Amino acid sequence: MDAKVIHRLEEIVGRKDVLTSIENRIAYSYDATPTFSSLPDAVVIPSNVEQVSEILKLANEEGFAVIPRGSGTGLSGGVVPVPNSIVLLMNRWRKIIEIDTENLTALVEPGVITAQLHQEVEKLGLFYPPDPGSMTISTIGGNVAENAGGLRGLKYGVTKNYVLGIEAVLPTGEIINVGGKNVKDVAGYNLKDVLIGSEGTLAIFTKILLKLIPKPQASKTMLAFFNSIKDAGKAVSSIIANHITPATLEFLDNTTIKCVEDYAHLGLPTEAGALLLIEVDGHPAQVQEEAEKIEKICKVNRSTDFKVAMTEGEALKLKTARRSAFAALARIKPTTILEDATVPRSCVPEMVEKIQEIAKKYGIIIGNFGHAGDGNLHPTALTDERDKDEMKRVEMAFDEIFDFAIKLGGTITGEHGIGLAKKKFLPKQFNSATIDFMRKIKEVLDPKGVLNPGKIFDFKPRCEGRLPNSREEIEKFGGLWI
Amino acid sequence: MDAKVIHRLEEIVGRKDVLTSIENRIAYSYDATPTFSSLPDAVVIPSNVEQVSEILKLANEEGFAVIPRGSGTGLSGGVVPVPNSIVLLMNRWRKIIEIDTENLTALVEPGVITAQLHQEVEKLGLFYPPDPGSMTISTIGGNVAENAGGLRGLKYGVTKNYVLGIEAVLPTGEIINVGGKNVKDVAGYNLKDVLIGSEGTLAIFTKILLKLIPKPQASKTMLAFFNSIKDAGKAVSSIIANHITPATLEFLDNTTIKCVEDYAHLGLPTEAGALLLIEVDGHPAQVQEEAEKIEKICKVNRSTDFKVAMTEGEALKLKTARRSAFAALARIKPTTILEDATVPRSCVPEMVEKIQEIAKKYGIIIGNFGHAGDGNLHPTALTDERDKDEMKRVEMAFDEIFDFAIKLGGTITGEHGIGLAKKKFLPKQFNSATIDFMRKIKEVLDPKGVLNPGKIFDFKPRCEGRLPNSREEIEKFGGLWI
Repeated sequence: MDAKVIHRLEEIVGRKDVLTSIENRIAYSYDATPTFSSLPDAVVIPSNVEQVSEILKLANEEGFAVIPRGSGTGLSGGVVPVPNSIVLLMNRWRKIIEIDTENLTALVEPGVITAQLHQEVEKLGLFYPPDPGSMTISTIGGNVAENAGGLRGLKYGVTKNYVLGIEAVLPTGEIINVGGKNVKDVAGYNLKDVLIGSEGTLAIFTKILLKLIPKPQASKTMLAFFNSIKDAGKAVSSIIANHITPATLEFLDNTTIKCVEDYAHLGLPTEAGALLLIEVDGHPAQVQEEAEKIEKICKVNRSTDFKVAMTEGEALKLKTARRSAFAALARIKPTTILEDATVPRSCVPEMVEKIQEIAKKYGIIIGNFGHAGDGNLHPTALTDERDKDEMKRVEMAFDEIFDFAIKLGGTITGEHGIGLAKKKFLPKQFNSATIDFMRKIKEVLDPKGVLNPGKIFDFKPRCEGRLPNSREEIEKFGGLWI
Repeated sequence: MDAKVIHRLEEIVGRKDVLTSIENRIAYSYDATPTFSSLPDAVVIPSNVEQVSEILKLANEEGFAVIPRGSGTGLSGGVVPVPNSIVLLMNRWRKIIEIDTENLTALVEPGVITAQLHQEVEKLGLFYPPDPGSMTISTIGGNVAENAGGLRGLKYGVTKNYVLGIEAVLPTGEIINVGGKNVKDVAGYNLKDVLIGSEGTLAIFTKILLKLIPKPQASKTMLAFFNSIKDAGKAVSSIIANHITPATLEFLDNTTIKCVEDYAHLGLPTEAGALLLIEVDGHPAQVQEEAEKIEKICKVNRSTDFKVAMTEGEALKLKTARRSAFAALARIKPTTILEDATVPRSCVPEMVEKIQEIAKKYGIIIGNFGHAGDGNLHPTALTDERDKDEMKRVEMAFDEIFDFAIKLGGTITGEHGIGLAKKKFLPKQFNSATIDFMRKIKEVLDPKGVLNPGKIFDFKPRCEGRLPNSREEIEKFGGLWI
């Protein structure tokens, strides 16, 4: 990157907020996704929306790429830089601007940590349900960019269900405001929901208005153990068929149970084929009734043990079994590839069985856990990226896993996004007209491809109504070849 | 329209499904919005998705407009034809294809009547919450195109919260499939939510996958009367502040109460300043507790009378007071203009007061009722479109009402859409960058402007990177001047 461009960036945000040392560039060259990394030319820390706008205008003038970044906990390579790029670091924007107890909304800056927001609103008897696995580190801005899910998705939905409004800067530098405190609003196209989950490719969020709900009065946490995944799967189906919607309905397979026990020493039976973590919440009478029904359902489906937390402390301990699954699995081998193949909930048992079969076929270790209630599984390959042969087999295994998920009417990503990691799978899920629709939105909003280019799909500017065919053509029309 | 084009349409759908008589053309020249009408050249009734695709391809070749239509109950002129257009009638597509009791979804054709879907799913103990005022006539396709709301919006959200997937035909004839039965899905841009509420300008829906929830076990319906709107408003705020989320929380002002009593003879006190219809649902214990709390809150806020329905029949009778508001008001004068200015719920009392003040200022009758719980008001002007002077005053009054709603952080339309009726207000709510974002989506998907052109904003194709300035330019670049 030209020294002149660095100088102009320093003029916009101030000299101390443009980091160009190799240490800083390396620190921001990767996120939580294994195998992807690329050095940015600088890390730039803006302080206000006008600076963000100016930086994007400069990027369009000078032809460099801007990679917006929160805490970098993403699992699809969504904030990995590209050549000739800057990382735009938003995690200093940590202000909760307003909690409106009359309209039940919170206006926050994008760098607010998700778990911190939970704490603040719960002090007021309110509740912000989305709880992605990374919530103690991840930012609301990142959650919105990825439409993050979490354990409470089954009953409460995901991040997009709680975003009421967004102030954002478009790729060409314009500032827009969409949505607001209105429960109902149908004025014009729903731009808000196209920005949510756009993985930093369509806009940089500068303010986010969130919906809150009253905190459930009571909750009960339970842990059920089964000899087989099949029995656990039947229990899940039966809970839903009985019209109970637990806040949380999670499972761990035997591989994951063993790793968790080894890591956290919770006293889990390491011979169990599967574990279900179940939490119900709401009115105390309803919670009591549902918990009793769930215990019966688990017993009918041959649970080998069933624990109910009697105190908040015990509930936390039970939840630790699930919350530590990723960390526990990650200790076994140097490289942990956590995926999020998702299927309609009725297909969970079939999908879980297929994953076991595929792991066996390719001779690799795949721990499996996830959100049984909403069909969102986390098959996790434990491998070593230096072992090229095994990595090849891991890749082939996931190809088969995603193919099977799509065959069941599932999706290649329930929570993590496409980013760089899943670009090649996108055409498996959508026909070309659908992908072309997505590309058109990107190209018309970001004609020079400056904002997080190459994520979701390769950025190729449209020239004379068609897509360019070669690197030369792409560069001629202002695109970026990645 | 050229006879040759009519002939080609007949080849696609069959001769009997192309209606060209003047009676048919008149019947489809308007919807439920006063003052807007325009004759289509033909009414075409397709039978399958391939025919819809062929018709749109023909429209692009021959340069005519296609106006998709369900039951025509819209209140913003969204299905009013334009010159050189056909109405594409979708209300014969009435099949409920599947109700999946494991995944809690319903796959329907777009012409299914909303209330009919309610009945079918409730037979299975399931629940489809969106209940727009027009639900006994309106279609699911129309509901999705307008993102229809309803009385249960406060607790359960609106149509978009229940649409999981869509099969649709794009303006250029391609068939796409977005969404599915997965509770979590973040693959690519969220195209589904851009199509929802796009008012028939971006796609024609041919299949819709809806989310269902378990039917609430119990419910209780209450009616509270107050001397003033102010007292009723305070009661509403207090209910929400006590963390109660009623399924329904509706109000009627004195003008509306009088009209309803005159129409339906329910024994309402015609001197009451305001009425609240409140319904709570959920677990029986919670319902009981919340109903008791609500009665106390109403009494503290000086309710003059409070009725609780003891039977389903009584509940229906209480609900009739609210459900018949529009019909009752419509009897008073020949022209009824029902609007949907919406504000954050905390601003409802201020907004209601302002509407009364504006009605007085312009010497017109405005009955007011609506969804107090979610801020979605229905100020309804009773007038006569032949009285040009009064119509002018009605227009000025609504200009002021919308200005004030926006000033309070509200929206010009909570439920009805922009269509033709509210185009001029759109720039009041959004800056030009935001409207340009919307226009770009339309223009890139529908370069010739064949699909419901002129709704939401005038369709002007972009030529050489800018908007055309004159009718001549617009027509030169394939646009339509309306």
